[in-house]
Amino acid sequence: MRADARKNYDHLLEVAREVIAEHGADASMRDISRRADVGLATVLRHFPTREALFEALLCTNMDALAQKARELETSDVPGEALVSWFREGVAFVQSYRGVVAMMASAHSDPESALYAACATVHAVGERLLIRAQAEGTARADMTGVDLFALMSALGWAADQPAFAPRGDHLFDIIASAILTKRASDEVEKVG
Amino acid sequence: MRADARKNYDHLLEVAREVIAEHGADASMRDISRRADVGLATVLRHFPTREALFEALLCTNMDALAQKARELETSDVPGEALVSWFREGVAFVQSYRGVVAMMASAHSDPESALYAACATVHAVGERLLIRAQAEGTARADMTGVDLFALMSALGWAADQPAFAPRGDHLFDIIASAILTKRASDEVEKVG
Repeated sequence: MRADARKNYDHLLEVAREVIAEHGADASMRDISRRADVGLATVLRHFPTREALFEALLCTNMDALAQKARELETSDVPGEALVSWFREGVAFVQSYRGVVAMMASAHSDPESALYAACATVHAVGERLLIRAQAEGTARADMTGVDLFALMSALGWAADQPAFAPRGDHLFDIIASAILTKRASDEVEKVG
Repeated sequence: MRADARKNYDHLLEVAREVIAEHGADASMRDISRRADVGLATVLRHFPTREALFEALLCTNMDALAQKARELETSDVPGEALVSWFREGVAFVQSYRGVVAMMASAHSDPESALYAACATVHAVGERLLIRAQAEGTARADMTGVDLFALMSALGWAADQPAFAPRGDHLFDIIASAILTKRASDEVEKVG
């Protein structure tokens, strides 16, 4: 990308971030183009779909989440490592209000611009899950899809004003379901 | 309501049910009026808001769910009774695609036409929860809001095509978190 094109792209992304922070993931591309003072066609040239825009917006958070997983993969308490990453994952799917529904839908749609990001989150989470299962601290009947689904369901619930105040507690309830009895006892002993 | 007004109302509700089954809770009031071959004003006279329409649509399911709770309140295995009702509750919030978000939002909005229905679901669920807690089979740190939130989160997840095939399994994971270890052992022993 040439320097001026890069500058336009960065400006557009910055404006999109603002508009989406105000209106949630349903913000219209037209609103973004108006606020950025460019034509709709310019926005669509950079981001042909809403998913493409979110792919760009979530890129940094995504990299941080994958990096966190790599660090946790060498932990000698895999159950705690899994829950710790799961917490970051829930925050990730809540990066923008309403984006969790878009991610859930992209998870099974290889045509979506967000598919690769979802597949990465799925894959790194699954690796941590398998390590904890091997050690007997995560329930054996869970898959990477279940982990992604619970993460999304929690993110969705915490996005609802009625449930937001209970977000942390709902997290604890679901985390306790992911861990086996043995792991919960160990966490309690440490805590 | 006069007999002919009643007939119009019932017809409108029937058409709304069809349109919403096809398009989910986001179906427009205009689509419903077109399909019913009446003016938009007629639809809005019967149902001034989308919530009012859903209140009418969910009425029957609501009554069935409350009746189920009353039956279960005399059960001598309160933990199982709670999970059994919780299963019906998850099905209830999935009555129509997308309606779960509307219910979650109505839950904390006394102005919504759906508020009373949500408050009833909340209240009957809470009673079953408290009975199971008193007996030591449901975790003590849960509230009626948590139960409603988990029910909604599960309903939301099962509504997503990516997670729908895992719906039953996700239910089991969350049900195991609601019950205490003791209750899970008893259910296992019976099963």
